[in-house]
Amino acid sequence: MGRRDDVALPELVERARGADPRAVARLITMVESGSPGLPELAALLVPDSGYAHVVGLTGAPGVGKSTATSALVGALRRQERRVGVLAVDPTSPFSGGALLGDRIRMQTHATDAGVLIRSMATRGHLGGLAAAVPLALRVLDAARCDVTLLETVGVGQSEVDVAGSADTTLVLLAPGLGDGVQAAKAGVLEIADVFVVNKADRDGAGRVAADLRQMLGLGGPHSAAGSWRPMIVMTSAEQGTGIDDVLAAIAKHRAWLDGADRLHQRRVRRAAREIEGLTLAQLRARLGGVRHGGALAELAAAVVERRTDAHAAARLLADGAIPPGSGPSR
Amino acid sequence: MGRRDDVALPELVERARGADPRAVARLITMVESGSPGLPELAALLVPDSGYAHVVGLTGAPGVGKSTATSALVGALRRQERRVGVLAVDPTSPFSGGALLGDRIRMQTHATDAGVLIRSMATRGHLGGLAAAVPLALRVLDAARCDVTLLETVGVGQSEVDVAGSADTTLVLLAPGLGDGVQAAKAGVLEIADVFVVNKADRDGAGRVAADLRQMLGLGGPHSAAGSWRPMIVMTSAEQGTGIDDVLAAIAKHRAWLDGADRLHQRRVRRAAREIEGLTLAQLRARLGGVRHGGALAELAAAVVERRTDAHAAARLLADGAIPPGSGPSR
Repeated sequence: MGRRDDVALPELVERARGADPRAVARLITMVESGSPGLPELAALLVPDSGYAHVVGLTGAPGVGKSTATSALVGALRRQERRVGVLAVDPTSPFSGGALLGDRIRMQTHATDAGVLIRSMATRGHLGGLAAAVPLALRVLDAARCDVTLLETVGVGQSEVDVAGSADTTLVLLAPGLGDGVQAAKAGVLEIADVFVVNKADRDGAGRVAADLRQMLGLGGPHSAAGSWRPMIVMTSAEQGTGIDDVLAAIAKHRAWLDGADRLHQRRVRRAAREIEGLTLAQLRARLGGVRHGGALAELAAAVVERRTDAHAAARLLADGAIPPGSGPSR
Repeated sequence: MGRRDDVALPELVERARGADPRAVARLITMVESGSPGLPELAALLVPDSGYAHVVGLTGAPGVGKSTATSALVGALRRQERRVGVLAVDPTSPFSGGALLGDRIRMQTHATDAGVLIRSMATRGHLGGLAAAVPLALRVLDAARCDVTLLETVGVGQSEVDVAGSADTTLVLLAPGLGDGVQAAKAGVLEIADVFVVNKADRDGAGRVAADLRQMLGLGGPHSAAGSWRPMIVMTSAEQGTGIDDVLAAIAKHRAWLDGADRLHQRRVRRAAREIEGLTLAQLRARLGGVRHGGALAELAAAVVERRTDAHAAARLLADGAIPPGSGPSR
């Protein structure tokens, strides 16, 4: 599952830069499996990072996410843009690189050299999604994807976390799923830059859009204060209608991001979350178990023997990392 | 919800030491709400900590946990031991000190000065259950509870985490809930020091015990290597039968713990987990958001501007806390 030793990491990264699909696949599998080579990989990918416009796609099961992704890939290819697709399942164990499902549903694009498709499961990964997804995206940056579609499988908080790795987030809805807008709860509505009401040819699609408009109190895509107000686009991914409108909405959002340095700011916030996740993961790994001795074991014994308390012990450990006063409360 | 300012914290702790139920209630509410006074409280409770024998009670809904707790409280009181009950719901928002449910089901003991009963919800607490439960237990230590029953509400991983705070863990099972032993999955069987098969007067109770025995491959309570082998006790909490057998099993486990320094070792491992949780929570709080400036913001900008990578940035932050080589891998 990890990197095979017959090819050195710098060589694999070079091949990924040449858009070799097997090199890309092997690097993303490395990321997925939490290989010890990840720090080296991260360092090698520094010059590539941030190349693609990352578009997140999220939505409840049944809204037609896979079909919409496939339609978007086709439309982007007609614009001659190189496309990456990263399908993330935050609830699964390692996929082990198995891509059968993706291959079937994306087979239209399977032989297109301008399309790279990978799925990734990250359950149990050290540092979790916060660490794995950004690094996998950088592998696709290295392969010079102009747009990377970051598709999340499943719902819930981790879906929101994954969407946090995107520059532009699409939330897909469809009529006939419970009560439409209500079907996408739990913070998902708040993360949308663009709402895509799919299956627009079906009964109730207009109602979903109307509910959204009411919820948003929409006047237009841009509010007075220069903040982004989510757009609503109607599509039928199966029939291929409305897909160009989605691309137009993505482009509009990108233009807004490029104004006033917003893309940079958004990506800095994202990098901060990534660093935070990795720092906590490293500290957890270093604190380790008490059987191995070290500072934690000594402090734990001191707590049990009533020589100190756990809060004071934690403060001692934390002070070493970030002295009080140098943090945000300064 | 937090501590009122009309009584200083040392004074509240003194009153708790005198077993004043209102002082105990206020201190545990402080812990539940994540009050800024917790480090001071933790320091004040150092001399009290570890007094009670902490007995965890866990089990799927419907096994009769509340009835069993109430019966155990009664039996312990007949032995003239002071009893604390801490009911923890890891899935609820703050209970805000509301105890109506507890009051109703434990009303037999409500007027007994030798019994202190509190419930606690810890969702959203900084440091989570790992930080809140041990500190709440120390409040009951201060009130000189000889035995504290730590009852978890709900099921799943957090239940296992809570049970990790106990010296002795009882896992309750009952016939007629799905398929008995299988009903308690997800790591719960592994944490049991004593299995209590409740509702022993009902059909299928013998089968549950037989399944357990088969699963454990039981010869006797102590295996050759001096490791503890879980005991199985049959009870009918409603009819009050078997409760003294549960107390005898708890006493037997305690005697085993007292041999070969096992209680101390178990508590050191527990304290290490507690310190780890608090350290990570403190670091998370200090790393804060990027809007406030500081090291994280600078490193995040460096990542976006392709001057470093997130892994290297995280290493920089983590190295300050625990230099590589001083940890468990030494």
